[in-house]
Amino acid sequence: MKYVAVKGADKILSKSSYIVQRPENLKNNWKEEFGNNNPICLELGMGRGDMIIKMAQQNPRINYIGLELDENQIATAAKRLIGKTLPNLRLIHGNAQDLDKMFGREIDTIYLTFSEPWPKKHDEQKRFTHYGYLKLYDKVFRKKKHIILKTDNKGLFGYSLETLSQYWYTFKRVSLDLHHDERHIANIMTDFEKNYYEIGRPIYYVDAEFEG
Amino acid sequence: MKYVAVKGADKILSKSSYIVQRPENLKNNWKEEFGNNNPICLELGMGRGDMIIKMAQQNPRINYIGLELDENQIATAAKRLIGKTLPNLRLIHGNAQDLDKMFGREIDTIYLTFSEPWPKKHDEQKRFTHYGYLKLYDKVFRKKKHIILKTDNKGLFGYSLETLSQYWYTFKRVSLDLHHDERHIANIMTDFEKNYYEIGRPIYYVDAEFEG
Repeated sequence: MKYVAVKGADKILSKSSYIVQRPENLKNNWKEEFGNNNPICLELGMGRGDMIIKMAQQNPRINYIGLELDENQIATAAKRLIGKTLPNLRLIHGNAQDLDKMFGREIDTIYLTFSEPWPKKHDEQKRFTHYGYLKLYDKVFRKKKHIILKTDNKGLFGYSLETLSQYWYTFKRVSLDLHHDERHIANIMTDFEKNYYEIGRPIYYVDAEFEG
Repeated sequence: MKYVAVKGADKILSKSSYIVQRPENLKNNWKEEFGNNNPICLELGMGRGDMIIKMAQQNPRINYIGLELDENQIATAAKRLIGKTLPNLRLIHGNAQDLDKMFGREIDTIYLTFSEPWPKKHDEQKRFTHYGYLKLYDKVFRKKKHIILKTDNKGLFGYSLETLSQYWYTFKRVSLDLHHDERHIANIMTDFEKNYYEIGRPIYYVDAEFEG
């Protein structure tokens, strides 16, 4: 997806107190950064922060970190946060491939929300549920591995169910239509998701874990 | 689903050479029954035999057994087979709960095709992917466990992905839209499936295995 350039994005990023300037310096020290022992949830490709900001607002006793590669999107997230006080939220402008440089075994849950599907076979290794990524996540999960994935993309969802199961994750909860599932599944709708919901397009969801 | 009564169903069943009259007598002797060492695939709830008859026709070097509880449906399957010569096919009028009385460790693949979804929570144990059934299947799989499930029912599919993964099956292939999947997945359409295909309703598919 292409996003409109945000005017002065670099300035917004350097000024925002939510943006962690040198995340590699906090490796193994995120507890100290947040000043508590609460669980830490990480969203990869958080986009404009739709979901993670709302989650941080709703769950003050959980710490949230949003990572995004795209400067314009993360700048939009930072702009949205101006004037807000969320001590349990941090944002990182960086690449998910460098995850193990930024984190030790400190993460409780990884969120993958409407990630890029990378449908072409030769882009497979860019998908956040590719074997290479699953291996990388092992280096940053605290104890239990725990991934929550939400997408409208059939191809990515099917693929992810395959790779996750082949990597011995088990599925606590799977939904083929999150918004019409009889069972209550806690969910925060992103703007993106709202549009799909309104046109009746199903959202796929999996809550996967592995007790190693 | 209710089916129209088939006239003389009991007579058809007692006369058809495809119907195994006392399957419990063949326990541990299905190889001898088929007269070869070919793999044996079992379909639970084969209905009117749409799929299993076609599979038996297409793959003469694989043995197929279709099990169905409903007298009218299995009688329809038997009627369809009149005049056909398929030495690799047998049908059983019986209950899937008695599987271990009919089979030793002789089955290579179990097919679950458009099974009853039993959507109500209190009917959960009737679903063919309930824990109780998965445990039962362990008693009849030859070596590797192998289940292929196909359904149009979102609820049953999500549920099955949960129970199968929690029972340590891994997913070789998952499709959220079998007929529009870019990857070729071998498939035989049942009459049921054709109707859904024509109205554009997605068919869910999983090929799950476990090497014990």
